[in-house]
Amino acid sequence: MNGDLLITNVRALDGNACDVQIHGGHIAAIGSNLSVPADATVIDGGGRLLFPGFVDAHTHMDKTLLGLGWYRNEVGPLLTDKIENERRLRREGGIDSHQQSSRHARLAIATGTTHIRTFVDIDTEVGLRGFEGVMQTREDFRDALDIQVVAFPQSGMLIRPGTVELMDTALANGAAVVGGLDPSAIDRDPAKHLDVIFGLAEKYDVDLDIHLHEPGDLGAFSVELIAERTKVLGWQGRVVISHALCLGGVDDAYVGRLIDLLLENGITIMSHGPSGLRPVPSVKRLYEAGVPMCTGNDGIRDAWGPLNMPDMLLRTFLVAYRNNLRRDDEIEMVLDIATHGGARVLGDTNYGLVPGCRADLVIVDGETHVEAVIDRPPRWLVLKGGKIVAREGECVV
Amino acid sequence: MNGDLLITNVRALDGNACDVQIHGGHIAAIGSNLSVPADATVIDGGGRLLFPGFVDAHTHMDKTLLGLGWYRNEVGPLLTDKIENERRLRREGGIDSHQQSSRHARLAIATGTTHIRTFVDIDTEVGLRGFEGVMQTREDFRDALDIQVVAFPQSGMLIRPGTVELMDTALANGAAVVGGLDPSAIDRDPAKHLDVIFGLAEKYDVDLDIHLHEPGDLGAFSVELIAERTKVLGWQGRVVISHALCLGGVDDAYVGRLIDLLLENGITIMSHGPSGLRPVPSVKRLYEAGVPMCTGNDGIRDAWGPLNMPDMLLRTFLVAYRNNLRRDDEIEMVLDIATHGGARVLGDTNYGLVPGCRADLVIVDGETHVEAVIDRPPRWLVLKGGKIVAREGECVV
Repeated sequence: MNGDLLITNVRALDGNACDVQIHGGHIAAIGSNLSVPADATVIDGGGRLLFPGFVDAHTHMDKTLLGLGWYRNEVGPLLTDKIENERRLRREGGIDSHQQSSRHARLAIATGTTHIRTFVDIDTEVGLRGFEGVMQTREDFRDALDIQVVAFPQSGMLIRPGTVELMDTALANGAAVVGGLDPSAIDRDPAKHLDVIFGLAEKYDVDLDIHLHEPGDLGAFSVELIAERTKVLGWQGRVVISHALCLGGVDDAYVGRLIDLLLENGITIMSHGPSGLRPVPSVKRLYEAGVPMCTGNDGIRDAWGPLNMPDMLLRTFLVAYRNNLRRDDEIEMVLDIATHGGARVLGDTNYGLVPGCRADLVIVDGETHVEAVIDRPPRWLVLKGGKIVAREGECVV
Repeated sequence: MNGDLLITNVRALDGNACDVQIHGGHIAAIGSNLSVPADATVIDGGGRLLFPGFVDAHTHMDKTLLGLGWYRNEVGPLLTDKIENERRLRREGGIDSHQQSSRHARLAIATGTTHIRTFVDIDTEVGLRGFEGVMQTREDFRDALDIQVVAFPQSGMLIRPGTVELMDTALANGAAVVGGLDPSAIDRDPAKHLDVIFGLAEKYDVDLDIHLHEPGDLGAFSVELIAERTKVLGWQGRVVISHALCLGGVDDAYVGRLIDLLLENGITIMSHGPSGLRPVPSVKRLYEAGVPMCTGNDGIRDAWGPLNMPDMLLRTFLVAYRNNLRRDDEIEMVLDIATHGGARVLGDTNYGLVPGCRADLVIVDGETHVEAVIDRPPRWLVLKGGKIVAREGECVV
């Protein structure tokens, strides 16, 4: 046993049966009727579906309440209600972010997630405790799940003096991305908010991921400010705007101008098919225009609400549902966003179903890949770097 | 064995453990520490959750493609594209509506659905074949699932001469409800369309269920016309407007006036948290105003698209998701719509978790009823009229 594998008879998106030869944690060959290398373990895929590992490019591992007993949610309607409620819960009850992010990681692995970008709240109450817990989980699971940590000022940054310094410390200690949040609606000073986070990005040579819930023209103004700074700093390809609800809330012509700005500056949009009656961006319009896209599960069963679970096939379904994407080619587009789109954002250049890529694979029952999105069966086998990390829907690490 | 049952240790919405005594297919008693009647079979509920049977008040059993191999959907974007595509598929391939509705029924039973209102397409091509097939399924499953059949002019009514006569024949032969469809957008003559279907309702003394996809002011005008005719005919409490997308597409004040019309005329709104970027009605606003509400799964894996499945816990989740209902009390509201709301529409006065009601029950694993909406575990036990019809997620009839 040298760790080499030959997985026979699985079907990638083209539907044709193929074999996958894995050597040294990478895909050595993929095609039909591959020979069995010496000492390789052979796994009969039984005609099942082959996916590249799922990429959850937007979640919050530090604050899930998974495993803590049902949390009866009685939170108010505003964004600030949810932020306040969560900070109170954390203050009163304590949330062990190492334990909680570990629970989250196990469920994510069980459902075929091989890569996560997680935001971690940093504020003047929780300090760096959430960050340190998730960094520990990142280390614990490093062979089973790529976790990229974002230093995220969930409670506001300029409005809470001391937050910038904490974010700076997190970035000096392993945070890979700097986060931003509603520069007008929360932080009340959009130009300064963006100048500070772009400054941190430059100081630590890291990417940016800005949560932008601001609606309509206010959000569109923020997109313009972000694009301006991306251009000046030369940060093309290194900025994500998450949610970007404004792209559903201004007129078609203005959306077109904003899309041009996104394309010119290589800015990625993260949309997760958000719950709600508010207008949201059209994933299809953005994707077809060539805007880089990714998606993710957002907060998992936390004080914000119970509606999300760490399953990227469910997320793919929800993005399709929210956007009324019913055609197979449309749902395949969302699958591309939930896999390759996310991998690009996380900077994984070794990702994919071609020789040389790391063997991050998911194998699932089903007639077609789109049917698997609808049925969401337990993942039969999940591999990370060529090692089995989940089997029959259960994490085995 | 006389068919009597005692189910011990289950928890209704209040969370308290209780026993349910079932005699003659009905709930004889419900409370704590009930004695075991002679010859009764005792089932230990193990602290699981108790729901009344789920009510799918809006689906299409005649045309699901379940079990026929994956249908690769390449349909165009318009409502009329979907109608044409489906009629062509039916013309070319044939859909055995008895077989297909039977498959649908088994899956619905497996997930705890005890009542269905199904639309059945009637047009000058399919004639009454779809209707006859579903009526046969209704008879086959009569002890396991209440199926109420709506004579529905999916391809238009006035624009297809001969359709009204076919609908008349269906109503003379067991259709329980008369259906309508976009009186302006599809049938091009709103006053006449509504006059004809209200005429059929009066002739056969049946309820009405009108699919109204028309957006904004056009749909709102249709709501006004429907309310006028409901009042004149004295059909209060007997009319459903399904979808009613216009209630999300006009200004707040106009929605308020339409709500007043709905309340004055006892008109029910069916909303299933529709997929898409278009504005949709606020379920919470309507419910809190006192408008009678129901929900349903709409078409199941048919030529319109693959996004729906016959599972009312999934539907409850999707209504909550589409409406951004995150609080437990809000999700419990949707559960009320998916159970009691639907039962009222179907006219079942023997429905509920109180003595005297028929024993239509669903028992599910979970900590709380809302958690079951999120996790959607296999239904542990489903009873219809006191008889077990599904167990461990499998239909047993």
